[in-house]
Amino acid sequence: MSDPITEQIHAMGKKARAAAYQLAALSSDQKNAILRAMAQGLRDNEAEILSENQKDLTAGQEKGLSSAMIDRLKLDSSRLEAVASALEHVATLPDPVGQVLEDWTQPNGLRIEQIRVPIGTIGIIYESRPNVTADAAALCFKTGNATILRGGSEAIHSNRAIASALSTSGAKAGLPEHAIQLIPFTDRQNVAAMAGMDQWLDLIIPRGGKGLIETVVSLARMPVIKHYDGICHIYVSEKADQEMAINLILNSKVQKPGVCNALETLLIQKSIAKDFLPKTASALREKGVELRGCQNCLEFMSDLIPATEEDWSTEYLEKILSIKIVDTLEEAITHINTYGSHHTDSIVTTDSAEAEKFLRSIDSACVMHNASTRFADGGEFGFGAEIGISTDKLHARGPMGLRELTSYQYRIRGNGQTR
Amino acid sequence: MSDPITEQIHAMGKKARAAAYQLAALSSDQKNAILRAMAQGLRDNEAEILSENQKDLTAGQEKGLSSAMIDRLKLDSSRLEAVASALEHVATLPDPVGQVLEDWTQPNGLRIEQIRVPIGTIGIIYESRPNVTADAAALCFKTGNATILRGGSEAIHSNRAIASALSTSGAKAGLPEHAIQLIPFTDRQNVAAMAGMDQWLDLIIPRGGKGLIETVVSLARMPVIKHYDGICHIYVSEKADQEMAINLILNSKVQKPGVCNALETLLIQKSIAKDFLPKTASALREKGVELRGCQNCLEFMSDLIPATEEDWSTEYLEKILSIKIVDTLEEAITHINTYGSHHTDSIVTTDSAEAEKFLRSIDSACVMHNASTRFADGGEFGFGAEIGISTDKLHARGPMGLRELTSYQYRIRGNGQTR
Repeated sequence: MSDPITEQIHAMGKKARAAAYQLAALSSDQKNAILRAMAQGLRDNEAEILSENQKDLTAGQEKGLSSAMIDRLKLDSSRLEAVASALEHVATLPDPVGQVLEDWTQPNGLRIEQIRVPIGTIGIIYESRPNVTADAAALCFKTGNATILRGGSEAIHSNRAIASALSTSGAKAGLPEHAIQLIPFTDRQNVAAMAGMDQWLDLIIPRGGKGLIETVVSLARMPVIKHYDGICHIYVSEKADQEMAINLILNSKVQKPGVCNALETLLIQKSIAKDFLPKTASALREKGVELRGCQNCLEFMSDLIPATEEDWSTEYLEKILSIKIVDTLEEAITHINTYGSHHTDSIVTTDSAEAEKFLRSIDSACVMHNASTRFADGGEFGFGAEIGISTDKLHARGPMGLRELTSYQYRIRGNGQTR
Repeated sequence: MSDPITEQIHAMGKKARAAAYQLAALSSDQKNAILRAMAQGLRDNEAEILSENQKDLTAGQEKGLSSAMIDRLKLDSSRLEAVASALEHVATLPDPVGQVLEDWTQPNGLRIEQIRVPIGTIGIIYESRPNVTADAAALCFKTGNATILRGGSEAIHSNRAIASALSTSGAKAGLPEHAIQLIPFTDRQNVAAMAGMDQWLDLIIPRGGKGLIETVVSLARMPVIKHYDGICHIYVSEKADQEMAINLILNSKVQKPGVCNALETLLIQKSIAKDFLPKTASALREKGVELRGCQNCLEFMSDLIPATEEDWSTEYLEKILSIKIVDTLEEAITHINTYGSHHTDSIVTTDSAEAEKFLRSIDSACVMHNASTRFADGGEFGFGAEIGISTDKLHARGPMGLRELTSYQYRIRGNGQTR
């Protein structure tokens, strides 16, 4: 850690740690007032933020970014208002910090309390969307955590303008100095420097594609909460309500195909395939979905594209669906546990014993009976806000709300007990 | 992953994953019966285990291991019986798997259940004590996890004999094949191979010294639950019951100095130091404790060894205590958060407002009022068993019992809901 960039980032880490102790002492009311002040700060600085955003858009066009990328980068008055409103919404949510998780007295009279506390310091490494600067900082702040933000180079002007508006307006309302810090330059070495400073960062959350997550995982010394692929399945049993099944398949696949809780592989029990497969295929094709079938599927429908082994472990994120015929529930379970990404999987059946076996046997964050995979979502769970959907099994699994941005501490009260 | 050792360990990982799915399906009664059978298996194989242990002891003596190391390696009839009894004790503990953590219905009628499930597969990397082979495997098994055990080279014969007794006797009672696997050789490369296979291992728990933990942390792609130093403090306020304070200091320092929850630094409020420091020092010296004081201490007691900056961040693990005089509660809090290891810290005071401020402001897993630091322990918390004391903030913090060896899953039951 001798080079100037690493030194500068470590210095930010040290300041974040000091800020975290001040944040932990703020009341919920104080934090909510600061969140509202920061929302207003974004509105007050709209002209500056949009003009900085224009620099990123111009640079992006010069670099030849795709129109999808440019759209992700772009802020306008209504998008910025949505970001500001989101901060105000976070202010209305219950604060998990201070919640007593358990409370008991030992036979020797020691009273032990397990209580939610902030994690401390969180690094957020993200790609092109500048709204993440405000969203992630707000969720971490609400839960009493200091953040170090590292956005993508394409959005650096926008990110600096947003972070500066948040800090300045927050400070007037009592935001501790260095509670929200953006790394103001985008050297590639930033990620390695952040990943190495486990004395200053308690957690890193990468928000972006698989490549970014892989890089962070391979470098990080501290915990990383990962949000990998969603290779989600629906299994249609011979005991399914077939009309319901087709509705759920359509909703899971086409309502928003580019997200991690969209359907990627459909499994159909063999005994109903002859009739059910063509019906479903025709409904999907009407919505423009490309279908790739297993060898058995092709026997029933010769016009399907043959699926390869690779299809079973592919997250298409577009209107493509792989379909496989299985003999039994057990075969479906084995397929999902082997090829899936342990994100979200659903069974359609009227037989509750079969459903319960599926729910118990699938090793995924969200397992569903007679419901669209699209419900694996913090908002749909009623969490009020979501920092991501974890594909990890430790600390947080599945949709992550505010609660998942906290740790806990044991507070023990005695009257002189010794061992 | 082309070399034969890595390939062999990855193959073990793949088998562990398959075993984990079988383990998740076992009932608590089945698991408890298997634990009792494994305990009996250790007893039935006593002769074999002790004779293999003798090989390790002989090799250790030839290698010139210290007598403390040899003692850690050594098994005899009563030590083996203690290991067997511990397995039977684990069988009596409540099984956290299947516990419903939360349960609610969304306005659209979806019923969402958050339920404890096994983590899946856990790697345990440990040093010389062969009893860890049985202890760690039993706790992981009770919670439905498959384990891959990697013990130290000094105990390889003992570990193989114990693992073989567990597997053979467990199998007769229904233990799934490959649920408990020991890496049967001790190449250094094992650790790197385990740390790299995040597709097969969900978690690694290193049990050993700082060097081992550091190595695992730097290599691991999966989460690691760490058990770093315990640099524990007691702060004696001017409002303390001084007799209680001396009792707590003595108990925390000398009852078992070699453990992570033993006291390492004593902080004394300046206003009482002139009287309290010599009283405490004399009580500690009577117990053979070496005292190292700050510059202010030396003014009151010139015969103390001067403490250096390094002392404040040293875990002695022996009868040595560093002592610092502080002006205020705030100075004590800052010292502890700066130099401590965020493990366990205690305040002695009769003023409850002061105590509450201490509890809220110290960033440690266990914070205490008027209690010995030695109570930071899964047994003393009533957990029934302990896999370690985590110095991490994510997933598990402080004493870890069975509950901390589980993850959770969302099970969602609907009747055709779509978005």
